[in-house]
Amino acid sequence: MADNKDNKRFTGKRNSHSNSAKNYSGSKNRSKSYYKKPSKPEKTKPSIKIAFLGGLNEIGKNITMFECEGDIVLLDCGMAFPDGDMLGVDLVIPDFTYIEQNIDRVKGMVVTHGHEDHIGGIPFLLSKMNIPIYGTPLTIGLLSNKLKEHSLFNSAKLNVVNVGKKVKLGCFEAEFIHVNHSIPDSCAIALHTPAGVVVHSGDFKIDCTPFVGDMIDLHSFARLGHHGVLAFLCESTNAERPGYTATEQTVTASLDSLFRQARNSRIIIATFASNVNRVQQIIDCAEKYDRKVAFSGRSMVNYMKVAEELGYLKVPENMIIDIDMLSHYTPEQIVLITTGSQGEPMSALSRMAYSDHRKVVVGEGDFIIISANPIPGNEKTVGNVVDELLKRGCKVIYEGMYDVHVSGHACQEELKIVQKLVNPKYFIPVHGEQKHLRKNAELAQSLGIDKKNIFIGDIGSHIEINEKYMKELAPVPAGKVFVDGLGVGDVGSIVLRDRKHLAQDGLIIIVASLDVYDGHVISGPDIVSRGFVYVRESEELLDEIREHALNILEDCADRNIKEWGTIKNRIKDDVSKMIGQKTRRFPMILPILQEV
Amino acid sequence: MADNKDNKRFTGKRNSHSNSAKNYSGSKNRSKSYYKKPSKPEKTKPSIKIAFLGGLNEIGKNITMFECEGDIVLLDCGMAFPDGDMLGVDLVIPDFTYIEQNIDRVKGMVVTHGHEDHIGGIPFLLSKMNIPIYGTPLTIGLLSNKLKEHSLFNSAKLNVVNVGKKVKLGCFEAEFIHVNHSIPDSCAIALHTPAGVVVHSGDFKIDCTPFVGDMIDLHSFARLGHHGVLAFLCESTNAERPGYTATEQTVTASLDSLFRQARNSRIIIATFASNVNRVQQIIDCAEKYDRKVAFSGRSMVNYMKVAEELGYLKVPENMIIDIDMLSHYTPEQIVLITTGSQGEPMSALSRMAYSDHRKVVVGEGDFIIISANPIPGNEKTVGNVVDELLKRGCKVIYEGMYDVHVSGHACQEELKIVQKLVNPKYFIPVHGEQKHLRKNAELAQSLGIDKKNIFIGDIGSHIEINEKYMKELAPVPAGKVFVDGLGVGDVGSIVLRDRKHLAQDGLIIIVASLDVYDGHVISGPDIVSRGFVYVRESEELLDEIREHALNILEDCADRNIKEWGTIKNRIKDDVSKMIGQKTRRFPMILPILQEV
Repeated sequence: MADNKDNKRFTGKRNSHSNSAKNYSGSKNRSKSYYKKPSKPEKTKPSIKIAFLGGLNEIGKNITMFECEGDIVLLDCGMAFPDGDMLGVDLVIPDFTYIEQNIDRVKGMVVTHGHEDHIGGIPFLLSKMNIPIYGTPLTIGLLSNKLKEHSLFNSAKLNVVNVGKKVKLGCFEAEFIHVNHSIPDSCAIALHTPAGVVVHSGDFKIDCTPFVGDMIDLHSFARLGHHGVLAFLCESTNAERPGYTATEQTVTASLDSLFRQARNSRIIIATFASNVNRVQQIIDCAEKYDRKVAFSGRSMVNYMKVAEELGYLKVPENMIIDIDMLSHYTPEQIVLITTGSQGEPMSALSRMAYSDHRKVVVGEGDFIIISANPIPGNEKTVGNVVDELLKRGCKVIYEGMYDVHVSGHACQEELKIVQKLVNPKYFIPVHGEQKHLRKNAELAQSLGIDKKNIFIGDIGSHIEINEKYMKELAPVPAGKVFVDGLGVGDVGSIVLRDRKHLAQDGLIIIVASLDVYDGHVISGPDIVSRGFVYVRESEELLDEIREHALNILEDCADRNIKEWGTIKNRIKDDVSKMIGQKTRRFPMILPILQEV
Repeated sequence: MADNKDNKRFTGKRNSHSNSAKNYSGSKNRSKSYYKKPSKPEKTKPSIKIAFLGGLNEIGKNITMFECEGDIVLLDCGMAFPDGDMLGVDLVIPDFTYIEQNIDRVKGMVVTHGHEDHIGGIPFLLSKMNIPIYGTPLTIGLLSNKLKEHSLFNSAKLNVVNVGKKVKLGCFEAEFIHVNHSIPDSCAIALHTPAGVVVHSGDFKIDCTPFVGDMIDLHSFARLGHHGVLAFLCESTNAERPGYTATEQTVTASLDSLFRQARNSRIIIATFASNVNRVQQIIDCAEKYDRKVAFSGRSMVNYMKVAEELGYLKVPENMIIDIDMLSHYTPEQIVLITTGSQGEPMSALSRMAYSDHRKVVVGEGDFIIISANPIPGNEKTVGNVVDELLKRGCKVIYEGMYDVHVSGHACQEELKIVQKLVNPKYFIPVHGEQKHLRKNAELAQSLGIDKKNIFIGDIGSHIEINEKYMKELAPVPAGKVFVDGLGVGDVGSIVLRDRKHLAQDGLIIIVASLDVYDGHVISGPDIVSRGFVYVRESEELLDEIREHALNILEDCADRNIKEWGTIKNRIKDDVSKMIGQKTRRFPMILPILQEV
């Protein structure tokens, strides 16, 4: 049995973790005996509690907390990207309060795979409490990189677990099950507990012919289902999509045909930096068509470095060239692999599109492939980048036109197959917005699971389940914490409300010095405005505002009103009203008074 | 021949315009003779110039200017909705400078249909110059409503032209050709000029079995093509979509089946306020299933009022109820037709979703149908509204799940058919982003039009075409003018840059009174911040900023630096640098100095 007392520190090599007693290694070492029914339980089993700290009613910041017989295990700790109304926020992480309140009982965190929405919150968690982390080699490799950037690597307790293996965390035993997804080394987790087995799907799809590696380990899902699963937490990303996600092989075929088509052009391909297998496909194509490969974009370079070091990316010798060397080759000798498939403003592809890339100038003769679909919300920015590239004369292959991308997530038929194999008593859709969760729940119902055994939760939901019942407990502290620059949590609703107000109509500052004795105006009022009107063309309006403010101040002095709060509120209200009538705009009004 | 000298003022009745000489009324009064080739032109024809003032490389604010033998005719004048980076902007209209420069020669404007992206800019144009407007009855009816809101109706020169008719504008003769689209009374325009015939498609699709009215008048396109068309300006919205747009009848069938499915629920349907035929479909369904109909949303109520008055909407007696009367009926007696199909924050459906609607509370027992597709860029907000409705227990039918919407625009096969019928010498894709324009151009090329006879323009492009050549002229003044509240054009790039800065990181005001003689600080510096940090938890940081600013001010006084510009710049630079190092944020720094 794996034991976290002899955890090896991550050494950068694959297969470094071999402390596994039972050999549940997927399809290879199965014995015939395990397909028998287990003997009946002797006594009533305890409950397991599940707290949902993120990932429900949102895409991003997945984190789940499991508690059984006093022991706690966390699963994943992701980040999310800010919505459009979270102005100036760089990223969003989960609220860790409930974990902090129970830190004494936390045995560790298991991580399903290396995507940002599953590991991006870990540096912020570890900077508060040093929880041991367990994951597959690539996941731990990518996390290590991230922790180095946060200067947390040396203190972190990182543990590599290979797929098919188990690790013991208090009364939990976490089994890592290989799944297909858009990053190698992705896992589902089966938590074997005194309360029964709880399976979390992680992010997955069924690809019977993946480009690299094995098909998802359906045998293990079957084995678990056969022996009895208490609850299945199943991802819901593509629950609205009927049918199956196409195999990665369709992308291989498309890329090959596009490479042939582009034979006289430079090829530029944008994809997710984390999609190591996609990059492998491109590298294989480049080898076939005798092209060199360069990477552009910091995250692309970082990911590929880790993936190559750990053996997840196989690169022929002398194939990779530095981006500075591009000019030494003709266009038809080059493939440039870049970030920016989501139209992110600062990404390499966007910079190329807007002529802002220091090292790459695009134009006619460039054959650009966007090997990704826009994540909901990014359609417009991706479209803008495509438009700019087209204007520069590039040939652009994007969404829908060719099979240059397949999703990493299971569609309805795949979800149903895995749900049926796992065959749980309770079904809990996770990893999705409300519509995805509901659709996934409907799929489970269509397979015969009783509605009362399905739980659609929210961030902060807390449930208790055992063989007899599933009940909802009082919610736990949970929510969104905003990261802005170096600040974590210091931007909240008031700051955002102000930013929104300023963004809408700008601000007007009214500054005056008042006589300390009689309250009359000594200097000012001066009017400073930003983001309101173009000042040079609106002097008349600003004069009126000044006049209006002066009248209010003098009136207050005459009436002997001395509470500055009262005076400021009158200025705010009256000036705002006057400006609103004249312009139908409502800038923030900031009266600043000084006593002299 | 129609003549603009005897224009009737719009009286609110259909068919008020009958001054048509030739009877080119679509398929009905065709004579056999017009299918003959016309006799050869006797002399070289003049050129026609086309200036593209909007609608290229954007979706919205369509406006085109045609000039022949000194006469000018405008076609459409729309508005656009602001992009995400146009903070606080309400809407965007074209730059009218070039029209103003040539106003003496402008004979009038023809309008293709009543959508905002074709008529929304007209009030702003008419407030500057009173150009006569020509359009079909519903278009003029909707425009009248709009002009009343801007107090421009009484002075406006509005002229109703029925489909199939022509109107003379200087040397131009504009023929209105019936097309299918998502609003009744939509037209293509054929401009008969001394230079030849130029056809503008307007917005169109081919629906052989529309729910209301006739199929698109393909006969007229065929006739024009047969006689020879110099240039075809063709809309490009769906140029990326293969195949055909399905007929409106598919929606009829879907709605019927959903009404049956929802028999015990209140039905709420969100659609575009302007989609009169869709509303007619819903009303017909309501009649069949014995439900009353209420409207929610100001624009929905307005559109339906005009459409009913003009006879475009047929409503059974006693069917429409006021929204205040909802409580007098049981849910299964009601259909509520509402705005908000795009998830617009202030729309009726959004208010229902976020429990902010004064008159409608939604929940279990509500069957909600979103009869529209999200316009690119709105996917996220529509998704959020759907999620909120689902959380409240509503059943929601949205995009893709059922055939509750078909597009109003032609897909590739339809575009090709019309292009072939019109058979122009020059092809000019319009109404679309770069990718749509390019795709439409590719379609034309695939039909045999020479690449050199295709022009892909931009806003401000100006071309000259005649039988011998098409050439690009120097661009004309054109661009975006922002409307914010009552202000038109007073928000420009500087104001937007400030709003963006404020939105990202907020602001810090540093205010101090200085001694008029020696420049030393008498009062302050006081620090006021908004949208930067939560002040109560960041007092230490604000103290440091105050201290830092004080040191700078005193240092300047000691060094006898008296230019306030210099002092302010030092404060801005030094404080910004200090805050950046501590927080990695860069708020706007506003030093305000007063002399006492």
